[in-house]
Amino acid sequence: MDVIEVIRTKRDKGELSTGHIDWVIDAYTRGEVADEQMSALAMAILLNGMNRREIADWTAAMIRSGERMDWSMLDRPTADKHSTGGVGDKITLPLAPLVAACGAYVPQLSGRGLGHTGGTLDKLESIPGWRASLSNDEMLGVIRSAGAVVCAAGTGLAPADKKLYALRDVTGTVESIPLIASSIMSKKIAEGTGALVLDVKVGSGAFMKDVANARELAATMVALGKDAGVSTVALLTAMDRPLGLAVGNALEVQESIEVLAGGGPADVVELTVRLAREMLRLAGVNGKDPEEALKDGSAMDAWRRMISAQGGDPDALLPTAPESTVVVAPASGVVTRMDAYAVGLAAWRLGAGRARKEDPVSFGAGIMLHARPGDIVRAGQPLMTLYADETSRFERGLEALEGGFEVGPASVEQLPLIIDRIE
Amino acid sequence: MDVIEVIRTKRDKGELSTGHIDWVIDAYTRGEVADEQMSALAMAILLNGMNRREIADWTAAMIRSGERMDWSMLDRPTADKHSTGGVGDKITLPLAPLVAACGAYVPQLSGRGLGHTGGTLDKLESIPGWRASLSNDEMLGVIRSAGAVVCAAGTGLAPADKKLYALRDVTGTVESIPLIASSIMSKKIAEGTGALVLDVKVGSGAFMKDVANARELAATMVALGKDAGVSTVALLTAMDRPLGLAVGNALEVQESIEVLAGGGPADVVELTVRLAREMLRLAGVNGKDPEEALKDGSAMDAWRRMISAQGGDPDALLPTAPESTVVVAPASGVVTRMDAYAVGLAAWRLGAGRARKEDPVSFGAGIMLHARPGDIVRAGQPLMTLYADETSRFERGLEALEGGFEVGPASVEQLPLIIDRIE
Repeated sequence: MDVIEVIRTKRDKGELSTGHIDWVIDAYTRGEVADEQMSALAMAILLNGMNRREIADWTAAMIRSGERMDWSMLDRPTADKHSTGGVGDKITLPLAPLVAACGAYVPQLSGRGLGHTGGTLDKLESIPGWRASLSNDEMLGVIRSAGAVVCAAGTGLAPADKKLYALRDVTGTVESIPLIASSIMSKKIAEGTGALVLDVKVGSGAFMKDVANARELAATMVALGKDAGVSTVALLTAMDRPLGLAVGNALEVQESIEVLAGGGPADVVELTVRLAREMLRLAGVNGKDPEEALKDGSAMDAWRRMISAQGGDPDALLPTAPESTVVVAPASGVVTRMDAYAVGLAAWRLGAGRARKEDPVSFGAGIMLHARPGDIVRAGQPLMTLYADETSRFERGLEALEGGFEVGPASVEQLPLIIDRIE
Repeated sequence: MDVIEVIRTKRDKGELSTGHIDWVIDAYTRGEVADEQMSALAMAILLNGMNRREIADWTAAMIRSGERMDWSMLDRPTADKHSTGGVGDKITLPLAPLVAACGAYVPQLSGRGLGHTGGTLDKLESIPGWRASLSNDEMLGVIRSAGAVVCAAGTGLAPADKKLYALRDVTGTVESIPLIASSIMSKKIAEGTGALVLDVKVGSGAFMKDVANARELAATMVALGKDAGVSTVALLTAMDRPLGLAVGNALEVQESIEVLAGGGPADVVELTVRLAREMLRLAGVNGKDPEEALKDGSAMDAWRRMISAQGGDPDALLPTAPESTVVVAPASGVVTRMDAYAVGLAAWRLGAGRARKEDPVSFGAGIMLHARPGDIVRAGQPLMTLYADETSRFERGLEALEGGFEVGPASVEQLPLIIDRIE
C-alpha cells in the first residue's frame, strides 16, 4: 500500500477503503507513515469528510492499535459517561459514585484539561493523596471495592489515537467531526464499558458552538457505539453559560461534594440525576433511584470509598488560593448573560487550566459565581469572586471577563439545560 | 505569529495576509514551523486555493529565503525558458546555444528527471566529462565564453522551495496550481533572468492533462513573472504524443545535435525556433534569425563551446545501451495514437528515468520511435526500438506500451503543436 495513494484518494473526494484505513492507521502507529503524511491526510479528511462506513473503520482500526479492556468478569453491568468538555463541568465527580450506589459499575478513563475547559483528573488531583494512574489490576480492585473508578488511560489503550490527537493539536486539524467522533469513541470502546451516555455540550464554552454541529457529532458517536456493541445514547446540553457556580479544580470538587450531600446548584443536580438515569437504563439496572441515593447518603459513601481506594483523603481540607478579588454588578437589573467561554478563559488565566500539556495547574485558582442568568441583582452587589495564587493574575483574568456578562432590563435568552436526546 | 492561526485561516477558506505568508515561509525554512504543520497548510492550500496576491506573496517569500542572482554586469540581455516537463522534451539542449548564437545570454538553472519525464541535467550528463554543478563564478565564466550555461541550482537559491518541494512530493500535495506556479517562478526569478518563456505542456505525458488547467497555470506564472519585473510569456504546447523521435538521455542528446546540425524532426525544430524567437523578442534582441543560426553552424558552435566549458567532450561517442528490441505495427493502417505517457513510462522502466531522487539513470536506455501519429504503416513494420542495459527490462517496458499506441483506419486526433500563447 502507498500512503500517497491513500492521501490522494481523500484529497480528491474519494472514499477510503477498509484496506486503506487499516493499513494507514497501523503504518502510522508503527512510524512507517510519517507525521507530515498523516497531517496532510487529516487536513484532507477535515475538508472532504468521511462517510459512516469510513468513520467506523477508522475507529475500529484505532481500537485495534492497542488493547481493548474487558469487564465481563464483573458481577454487575458497566456504564460510563463522556462529556465533550465545558466550563464548570464537574458532573463526573458526583455522577460516578452515584451510579455505583444505584447498582452499576463505572469504569471511567478520563483526561486532563487543555485550554479553557477543565479536566476531571486535574479536579480530583486537588484532593490530597489522590492518584490518577492505576494499573489494570488496581483499576479492577477500585471498581470491586467502590463500584466506580476514575483514572488516567494507560499507554496501551488506542495508541494510534494518542499519536494522532497530539498531531492534530499542532496542525490545525482538530475541528473535524469524523476525527473527533472516532477519537472519543475509540477510547471509550477500548475502555470496555457496556453502556455509554455522551454529554455533548453546545454553546460558547463548548467545542461545538451550535446545535446542528453538536447533533451531527452526537449522531456520529451514537452510531459508532452501536456498531461496536456498546449501548449508546447522547444528550445535547447547554454550555452557553457555566454549569453550576464553581469553576476551577478544588472549587468544583467542593461543589460536587455539596451535590453528593443532597445540596448543590439546581442545574448540576438535574444534569447529574438525568445522566445517572440514562446510564442505569442503558445498563439495564433497576435498583435505587438516583435522587434517593443522593438523599440517603449512599452516593456520598461510594464517593468516599472511591477517593480512599485511590489514595485520597475524603476528609482532607482542599487547597485554597490565597488571593481573591470581587466583580460587582455594574447596574441594577437582571443578569441577562454569563458567557461560558469568557468565564472559562478567565479561570484558565487565573491558573486553573494549563497552556501546554506539561504545565502544572493551580488547584485553588478559579471563579465562584454569585449570580446566574435570570437572577435579579442591584448595582454594586457581588457577581463573582476570582481566586488566584498571585494577585498579578487578576488583570488578565478580568480582561477575559470584559463583555462576558450583562446586567440589563432585557429578558434572558439561553439554551434549555437539556436540549435534545439522540439515541 | 502562531502557525495554527495561519493553517486555520486557509483551512476555513480565508485569505492569508502578507504577514502570515512572510512569517510561515521564513519560520519553515528555519525549522520553527515543522514539516507536519507545513504539510497540513499545503493540503489546505491545495483544496481551498490562493488568490493572485497570496501567490505573489508566497513566491516573493520563497525568493527571499535565499539569494537572488544578478546578471546586470553582463553586456547583453538574458533570457531563459522553462518547460513544465514532458516526454522527449530535449528542447533546452538545442535552444540554449541557439539563443546564445542569436545574441542573448541564457543562464539556465535546470533539474533532474523524476517519474516518467526526463530531466535536462540527466541528458547532458550522458556527454562524457560534462559537469552539472558549477559555482556562481564558474557559471558567469561559461556564460561569457559560450553565451549559454545549463547547470544545477545551488543550495542557496530559494531554499524554502527546495524544502517544500521535497515535502509536497511525499504528502500528496504536488497537484496545486498555486504551489506549482510559485515553486517554478521562485526558482526562475531567483535565477536572475531578465526574460522568461514558459513552455507549459498539455496532455497525457504532461503534468497538466487538459488545456483549461494548463492555461490557468500559465496565466498564474506569467502574472508572477511580471509582478517580479521579469518579462514573461507562456506557450501551451502539445504533450499528448512524445516530442521528436528520441526518448532517453543520450538518445535525446543525439537528436538535439541533429537539430543543431540543421536536421532533426520537424516538431522539435519548429518548437525550438518558436521558443528562440519568443526569448529574443522578450529580451529585445534583434540579431540573427534562429532558423539562419541553425543553418550556418553558429548554433552548433555555441553548443560545442557550452559543452566544452562545462568539461564535456562534444566529439565523444555517446553511451549506447547493449540490448534492444523492436515493436512492430500490429496491422496495416494509419498510426492514430502514440501516447506520451505510455512511451514515457516505458522509457522510465527501461532505465532512462529514476524512481527515487538518489537513483542513477541509464544514459543509453530509452526508445526511438520510427513512426508518429499520422504516418501510414504496414503490418510488421517497426514502430519503435526499445533500448536497455539488461534484457530483463523489456517485459515491464513493453507492458507500459500496451494500449499506448493504435494503428487503424480512423483519422488522427491530436493537439496542435502550439496550442496557445499567453502574455
